[in-house]
Amino acid sequence: MKTRAAVAFAAKTPLEVVELDLEGPKAGEVLVEIMATGICHTDAYTLDGLDSEGIFPSILGHEGAGIVREVGAGVTSVAPGDHVIPLYTPECRQCKSCLSGKTNLCTAIRATQGKGLMPDGSTRFSYKGQPIFHYMGCSTFSNFTVLPEIAVAKIREDAPFKTSCYIGCGVTTGVGAVVNTARVEPGANVIVFGLGGIGLNVIQGAKLVGANMIVGVDINPDREEWGRRFGMTHFVNPREVSGDLVQHLVALTDGGADYTFDCTGNTDVMRQALEACHRGWGTSIVIGVAEAGKEIATRPFQLVTGRNWRGTAFGGAKGRTDVPKIVDWYMNGKIEIDPMITHVLSLDEINKGFDLMHAGTSIRSVVVY
Amino acid sequence: MKTRAAVAFAAKTPLEVVELDLEGPKAGEVLVEIMATGICHTDAYTLDGLDSEGIFPSILGHEGAGIVREVGAGVTSVAPGDHVIPLYTPECRQCKSCLSGKTNLCTAIRATQGKGLMPDGSTRFSYKGQPIFHYMGCSTFSNFTVLPEIAVAKIREDAPFKTSCYIGCGVTTGVGAVVNTARVEPGANVIVFGLGGIGLNVIQGAKLVGANMIVGVDINPDREEWGRRFGMTHFVNPREVSGDLVQHLVALTDGGADYTFDCTGNTDVMRQALEACHRGWGTSIVIGVAEAGKEIATRPFQLVTGRNWRGTAFGGAKGRTDVPKIVDWYMNGKIEIDPMITHVLSLDEINKGFDLMHAGTSIRSVVVY
Repeated sequence: MKTRAAVAFAAKTPLEVVELDLEGPKAGEVLVEIMATGICHTDAYTLDGLDSEGIFPSILGHEGAGIVREVGAGVTSVAPGDHVIPLYTPECRQCKSCLSGKTNLCTAIRATQGKGLMPDGSTRFSYKGQPIFHYMGCSTFSNFTVLPEIAVAKIREDAPFKTSCYIGCGVTTGVGAVVNTARVEPGANVIVFGLGGIGLNVIQGAKLVGANMIVGVDINPDREEWGRRFGMTHFVNPREVSGDLVQHLVALTDGGADYTFDCTGNTDVMRQALEACHRGWGTSIVIGVAEAGKEIATRPFQLVTGRNWRGTAFGGAKGRTDVPKIVDWYMNGKIEIDPMITHVLSLDEINKGFDLMHAGTSIRSVVVY
Repeated sequence: MKTRAAVAFAAKTPLEVVELDLEGPKAGEVLVEIMATGICHTDAYTLDGLDSEGIFPSILGHEGAGIVREVGAGVTSVAPGDHVIPLYTPECRQCKSCLSGKTNLCTAIRATQGKGLMPDGSTRFSYKGQPIFHYMGCSTFSNFTVLPEIAVAKIREDAPFKTSCYIGCGVTTGVGAVVNTARVEPGANVIVFGLGGIGLNVIQGAKLVGANMIVGVDINPDREEWGRRFGMTHFVNPREVSGDLVQHLVALTDGGADYTFDCTGNTDVMRQALEACHRGWGTSIVIGVAEAGKEIATRPFQLVTGRNWRGTAFGGAKGRTDVPKIVDWYMNGKIEIDPMITHVLSLDEINKGFDLMHAGTSIRSVVVY
């Protein structure tokens, strides 16, 4: 079949919207018509050539929502007509990781996914007879895409695609970091470093679970209003703090935060986030993706005196199990998404979405097919 | 009153055994006759001048056991004749840390303890009219010492002083890191880096809770026999591994350990310990005390993919609550101590204990008064 898609032919060049050839789903796979897709920093990270493992030509995009149109042999968990969110972190429910009950990092198809291929080692996309690679197992910058059955979460049909697609990455990453990874308890004090889309979702996750202080830290003063919109109680602009930022935050939170979240990807900020934790029990969660080769560091004394350094991927969410719940939370008003969707574009305008992100003027741009 | 004690008059000089003046206990304090004391690496760390916050002249020693001989006004939890273990980590049960239920790092007397003083800001020891400072709130290298009531754990009277003194630091630190901090579960795979006294106690803690593989790592081949004596199932000498040690350990444990423990104080080893953890859930516990100024580092990817970096002090044990239980475990045969006490010395021989430690030929030397 044919599909329109935005192809990344090479790093550091704009996407090109063309008509591609798409093979139908093989055994264990599903064909999904993508109805909407967010444009995430990770797409830009790859397109900008910062990911040393980036593969081209490929179809980027990993934050989508759509409708199953066809299923391959043996597929039992979804059927044509089902509304789904593609999962870059699948959930096979059979591998050592899934069965451990201790992580969402399913390993069933990790090897092929990392190579831009479907689990059978081939690609479904081609252009003028040349293979085009998949991306993060999703490739939502295509109107139609093929996914393994274990890499789609079935969601309720009344959820709008334009907003629920954001649950495919940013919302789940931020809210999930709070509820799944950190398991923030009511009354806890929280500090969020970086008030982009992920940071705002951490804030609303912290509000959801009844946190006490929710301190937002950002060098962009415009983000204060955004943070307060979603539940932030205190704003700190590091450029306006005289003296040491960590000491300032420790004093503000009466000894340090119970939980801190790095949503910046800056390894110096990750250290500040750890050291702003309360002695004895404070936990710092790394969410941001750092530049290749960068390392985090601290004195081991920080750990020996009870601080805990952790990380999270996809908010610790088990995709098929937890993503439908987050859609419910959205539909039931427990969390908000609509105000975060600052720009709605057509596929032909997709490069504008990257420009807005780089300019820092969007929270989330969404392409609606 | 008078007491015999080994005084550290200055860093990098041998201890001198002299007769001191000791004031009796003030309100909330107890006078303890120390019956036995271990010589720990932390004492040597201070005596060798490596602790930038070391205070002299002082009476070192923090791993003791003895008998309460007198109590000050208002003391209710212990009485003369009670057998006790001094606690360098007290348990006031009233400060923010104690009441949190999430840490053993009581802060009630931290400020004065760090200055070598009793909570009222003075010292009880003097020599020829000059004050001699306390050390870690304990000063067990004195036949008699004064401690705050909240810094003694009452223990059963049938526990021998010569061995149970080791519960005052090393045993509790190692066993407690497993049971309190890591909470290792039955069937877990464990790697222990460094098979000195702490490492051996981590090993027996892991055996106690039913761990599966208990891998010991040490560059000293003589430690293999010691490790196996306490429950180690596999021994790895890094000098005999061709290729990368972390990859070797990850392969040995089928993807990495569920829990790793650094008992070396070497920050490069701390990194190896983290990176030898299983993707998705492995937890690494820093126990060793690093050289001043040294930092730990890793790629944040290690955390984002589910590894957890933590630390522990005094094995996460709440002194007055947990130390008596560990004495019970020892007396009931759940853990062993006797074979670890490799040398028994008189107070006059105390410097020999430091020599044995530096030579690496002792597990634990104990001074019996």
